[in-house]
Amino acid sequence: MNKIEKLEKVRVIGFDADDTLWVNETYFREAEEKFASLLSDYEVHERVGRELFRVEIDNLGRYGYGVKGFVLSMIECALDLSNHQVPQKVISEIMDMGKEMLEHPIELLPHVEEVMAKLQQRYRLIVVTKGDLLDQERKLQRSGIAHYFHHVEILHDKQEENYRKLLHQQDIAPQEFLMVGNSLKSDVLPVVGIGAQAVHIPYHTTWAHEEPDPHAHDSTSYLSLASIAELPGHVLRPN
Amino acid sequence: MNKIEKLEKVRVIGFDADDTLWVNETYFREAEEKFASLLSDYEVHERVGRELFRVEIDNLGRYGYGVKGFVLSMIECALDLSNHQVPQKVISEIMDMGKEMLEHPIELLPHVEEVMAKLQQRYRLIVVTKGDLLDQERKLQRSGIAHYFHHVEILHDKQEENYRKLLHQQDIAPQEFLMVGNSLKSDVLPVVGIGAQAVHIPYHTTWAHEEPDPHAHDSTSYLSLASIAELPGHVLRPN
Repeated sequence: MNKIEKLEKVRVIGFDADDTLWVNETYFREAEEKFASLLSDYEVHERVGRELFRVEIDNLGRYGYGVKGFVLSMIECALDLSNHQVPQKVISEIMDMGKEMLEHPIELLPHVEEVMAKLQQRYRLIVVTKGDLLDQERKLQRSGIAHYFHHVEILHDKQEENYRKLLHQQDIAPQEFLMVGNSLKSDVLPVVGIGAQAVHIPYHTTWAHEEPDPHAHDSTSYLSLASIAELPGHVLRPN
Repeated sequence: MNKIEKLEKVRVIGFDADDTLWVNETYFREAEEKFASLLSDYEVHERVGRELFRVEIDNLGRYGYGVKGFVLSMIECALDLSNHQVPQKVISEIMDMGKEMLEHPIELLPHVEEVMAKLQQRYRLIVVTKGDLLDQERKLQRSGIAHYFHHVEILHDKQEENYRKLLHQQDIAPQEFLMVGNSLKSDVLPVVGIGAQAVHIPYHTTWAHEEPDPHAHDSTSYLSLASIAELPGHVLRPN
């Protein structure tokens, strides 16, 4: 499929935020690299990464998505892997990494602002993201593009039921909604699953937890684009 | 003032959650006690409490409200107060305290359920709380009273602008809204400040950060009750 099937009914476009509107995963990857270096006395680089991932997934239901849970998982992993030998200074450094991540300036992805300016003339634009409430609101405020959006919804997860509830609360029928995001698992498949439409714009880096089972979906049910710059050509075409 | 002045226009009642619908602050106080004991080799009890409060306030803009930020602040405070000498085992114990807090069963305050059952017959009830998105949603689900509420709003802060935006989004005029909560600073004063009404139901314990300046408000502008059990008598009275 190379177009959006039922464009004429779409009136609301939802955008994922992290790695769709602005850079995010890159900073987590950099933090993971630094974390592995800090623990190099105790474990080889690659194994640190695997252990951290395991701890993060174990804590996901408890801490949810976001920087604070990530920092708590790094500390837990450092204590585990070092058998409680990791120097206290390293724990301080891990906490400082978290503070830096929370205060990082927002780096918009290429073409995002011009695309929002174009699309808002024909569509109601909303942000649909998950993660820490405070952190996501702060990022949007700092991004300089908050004024393009009519509504911001921060979900604790992005499964079919979360999207269904959002559309119901916002009084949007599924066929009126198009979601745009970098994660097949969170932004595309559950949206297609409830009868709305989705556009996938991959980011060069995806957290392993966001990778769906490659056999579990049909890639003809959504549109895939290399860049958000291509989006207006698909949704602003003459009907 | 011993009644709600303009009851006839009220159609929506908002409830704060922590320490209004269920016990919360008590668990933070217990955690603070335990934290002070863990650090008793480095500092006297009372000074640990003061230092932790200082670190929490310093981090509030960064971490927001909630258990995860509280745990990160405890770890930071432990490292600071011990000059990085605190044993790694203690850091583990602090993290375990946080996990316990996140998994704690919900203990409804007395009469809450019967009051919600009565009020929902005449009013639209909503929850207006602040804190971690995931944690607050989970607490509401576990509380067993989620079905009484038409809407749940989790704010990152409860100042006048946050309430103004909420009422606007929910299409509620200020005179149609009554807020009920235990915090003068978060649940009462900003609500009265935007022209809505508020009922204060103090909880026996209030976090120092939630204590308003006693000279900064006029206690005749809201109703104060000793227990939520008294609320129906005020808002279900014959007009």
